[in-house]
Amino acid sequence: MSQLTQEIEQLEKTLKDAKAAFYQNAVLGAEKKNEALETFALLIEENAAHLMAENQKDLEQARQDQLQGQLLNRLKLDNAKLAQVVQGIRDLVKLPDPAGKILAKTKLDDGLVLEKISVPLGVIGIIFESRPDVMPQVLSLVLKSGNAVVLKGGREARHSNAAFMDLVKKLNARCPYLANTWASLLDSREAVHQMLNYPEYVDLIIPRGSNQLVSSIMAATKIPVMGHADGICHIYVHQDMGSPEALAQALKMVVDAKVQYPSACNALETLLLHEAIAKVFLQDFAKDAKKNGIMIKGCEKTMAILPDCQPASEADWSSEYGDLTLSIKVVPDLDAAVGHINHYGSHHTDAILAKDPEAIERFLNSVDSACVFANASTRFADGFRFGFGAEVGISTAKTHARGPVGLEGLVIYKYKLRGQGQAVADYVGENAKPFRHEPLL
Amino acid sequence: MSQLTQEIEQLEKTLKDAKAAFYQNAVLGAEKKNEALETFALLIEENAAHLMAENQKDLEQARQDQLQGQLLNRLKLDNAKLAQVVQGIRDLVKLPDPAGKILAKTKLDDGLVLEKISVPLGVIGIIFESRPDVMPQVLSLVLKSGNAVVLKGGREARHSNAAFMDLVKKLNARCPYLANTWASLLDSREAVHQMLNYPEYVDLIIPRGSNQLVSSIMAATKIPVMGHADGICHIYVHQDMGSPEALAQALKMVVDAKVQYPSACNALETLLLHEAIAKVFLQDFAKDAKKNGIMIKGCEKTMAILPDCQPASEADWSSEYGDLTLSIKVVPDLDAAVGHINHYGSHHTDAILAKDPEAIERFLNSVDSACVFANASTRFADGFRFGFGAEVGISTAKTHARGPVGLEGLVIYKYKLRGQGQAVADYVGENAKPFRHEPLL
Repeated sequence: MSQLTQEIEQLEKTLKDAKAAFYQNAVLGAEKKNEALETFALLIEENAAHLMAENQKDLEQARQDQLQGQLLNRLKLDNAKLAQVVQGIRDLVKLPDPAGKILAKTKLDDGLVLEKISVPLGVIGIIFESRPDVMPQVLSLVLKSGNAVVLKGGREARHSNAAFMDLVKKLNARCPYLANTWASLLDSREAVHQMLNYPEYVDLIIPRGSNQLVSSIMAATKIPVMGHADGICHIYVHQDMGSPEALAQALKMVVDAKVQYPSACNALETLLLHEAIAKVFLQDFAKDAKKNGIMIKGCEKTMAILPDCQPASEADWSSEYGDLTLSIKVVPDLDAAVGHINHYGSHHTDAILAKDPEAIERFLNSVDSACVFANASTRFADGFRFGFGAEVGISTAKTHARGPVGLEGLVIYKYKLRGQGQAVADYVGENAKPFRHEPLL
Repeated sequence: MSQLTQEIEQLEKTLKDAKAAFYQNAVLGAEKKNEALETFALLIEENAAHLMAENQKDLEQARQDQLQGQLLNRLKLDNAKLAQVVQGIRDLVKLPDPAGKILAKTKLDDGLVLEKISVPLGVIGIIFESRPDVMPQVLSLVLKSGNAVVLKGGREARHSNAAFMDLVKKLNARCPYLANTWASLLDSREAVHQMLNYPEYVDLIIPRGSNQLVSSIMAATKIPVMGHADGICHIYVHQDMGSPEALAQALKMVVDAKVQYPSACNALETLLLHEAIAKVFLQDFAKDAKKNGIMIKGCEKTMAILPDCQPASEADWSSEYGDLTLSIKVVPDLDAAVGHINHYGSHHTDAILAKDPEAIERFLNSVDSACVFANASTRFADGFRFGFGAEVGISTAKTHARGPVGLEGLVIYKYKLRGQGQAVADYVGENAKPFRHEPLL
């Protein structure tokens, strides 16, 4: 048997086992799932030294491979990060069970009652990059929701990821009601590509990574993919923000959105300024930009006010810089800002800074993005900040789940109909019985 | 310019116009949308004679093309069907607006409030076959939800479909607040294939047609596809259905599920019998099968009881016959039935016939299908019967929308965050402000 054939057989077994585990974990009930989560949190605390020692191996390799500062920081597991992970798991225990919620109940007829009830989704395939703390977050969301998961972590974090998988084995031993195969770790890119060919076993793919990764996965599979292809976020500053106080506030939010974590997907890429306040805003902003190392690419009107900045090209309006570059465009009014955002944006997170409540509502209703903010930094778009306990990712899709996705992205619903022997033939034709369709909830 | 280039340019314009129309219709509000629906219902009543005359042209062509009885019936528009369509639209008017619902509300901090609110989804691409009454149903669901739609109907119904599009023009004239381009009809298969290449304009594809159609569309596009690939539905008869009364009821439901409309996706394909009641059930069922023209393909145990039936092969357990063929398998217990259904089924609709409440609940929880029924025919799985007013289709997907899909499959949500100038930098680091995450709903 060739190596590839062997690998495919191994993968098929992994996926089949994951599906079987899903059927088992899906019906566990809230109490057991929470007990397992508590145990997982304890195991992380008990094995913190080991986790950090394994992580140290990854860090050493990364230094040999000359990884840079921010990447090293993302890769590093320390006491603070582990404490946050454990806290996140305990927060998750407190949240209500996302499965088993009765979403609707209708009496179709006497003795024929329809229930719509939330249920776990199935086998989730998650592909993530170098942050090893993603792994326990994802594992705990999957446990809480009653799903099964097949993971592929970044090569840079392989020792850390393997250490977390060892904890899963210990968890399964301490909680024997868990299906043994509810979580597994793939170890090659080839296995990920193969996984895309199995819609019969894998119900949802969540790629957490580059635009390229997400887009190539979407093109290669029939399995639904939840991810965000780009994070081109905007702030529009309305004409009524010209007072010194409002201006200071606007500057603070713009700097925060651009500077606080420039490589995040919810960081600011394009600033839109109402022409009535463009001059006063830009004159002040020039100092903030200089102080924070922001490199401005401006439209013609921006350049007329700040002659030293770079000219923005058409391509800039649809660029995710991921660094301290900021494109700026002066617009005639709110509608032009909304039009620009809907056309060039990535439907991720966009904000208006304004006082006029009518302008604010028009913006929030008309901008077609997962997150629309008024007078707040775009950087708030995040599962933890939204209070979801953790997030499996941020979605810019228009179906299933949108924006920061926590537990609810991992459930769907089924319809349960309880009857007393009814046939459809009784409800059609000449002497058809009528339906009652009486809401019971 | 080549003809193809021209066609592609035309399609791009259609899709761009649809997107622009979506932005306009999305913010109309319930009152105007309902007024438009009422007007549409009136227009259908006023133009019923014209609609039926145009439909007559399709029927004549179909007779020339030697279409068969059931296909002709599906194609035919008569007063009864139009009355049902009009009634469906008026039922839809009475339903609450699916958009603008506040789904969750959280105080992240003082003066920083997050709202999760339902919104229309965008541009929906719908491909459907010969039933012309699908068209007004889909149009009214799209109107009610505030979306835009690009339709492709079956060639057999082209006069009828064009007549409905003429009504849309009249509707737009009477309701000038509607965006003119909210609905358009594609006229070639090539245009449908091209549409799959535009995820920037089309947010969801709903193919209503053959397995092949749905599957080939899924493989060819990054756009989310909502549809069902197969309808392999099961009924499992539990061991406690052996009394004469229970047996009579079970026979009635099995015959209904198989015979009432054999080509429907929710019709029965495989019957699973607990071995304790197999003999008594099959001896009675043989007469019903003969009377109704049901052709049985049985497992070995079935053949031991009914020696005249055909043997079932492995392929039968995953076949959607769409006719009066029925495969039958005798199983040792409920778990075997559940295992068979989850393995061979299409996760569409499966039913248990039983008395024991524990067995019923175990089946409803463990079978991983969109619709799980107890003591009712699988044929109840339908948007009208469930009380949704109309349906855009039935989904066997595990994401977004599952089972019969009405209005709610055409909406998603966005997060609105209203602040007072907050920056994320205030909530991180040493002197971080804590989040409050206080539910307001």
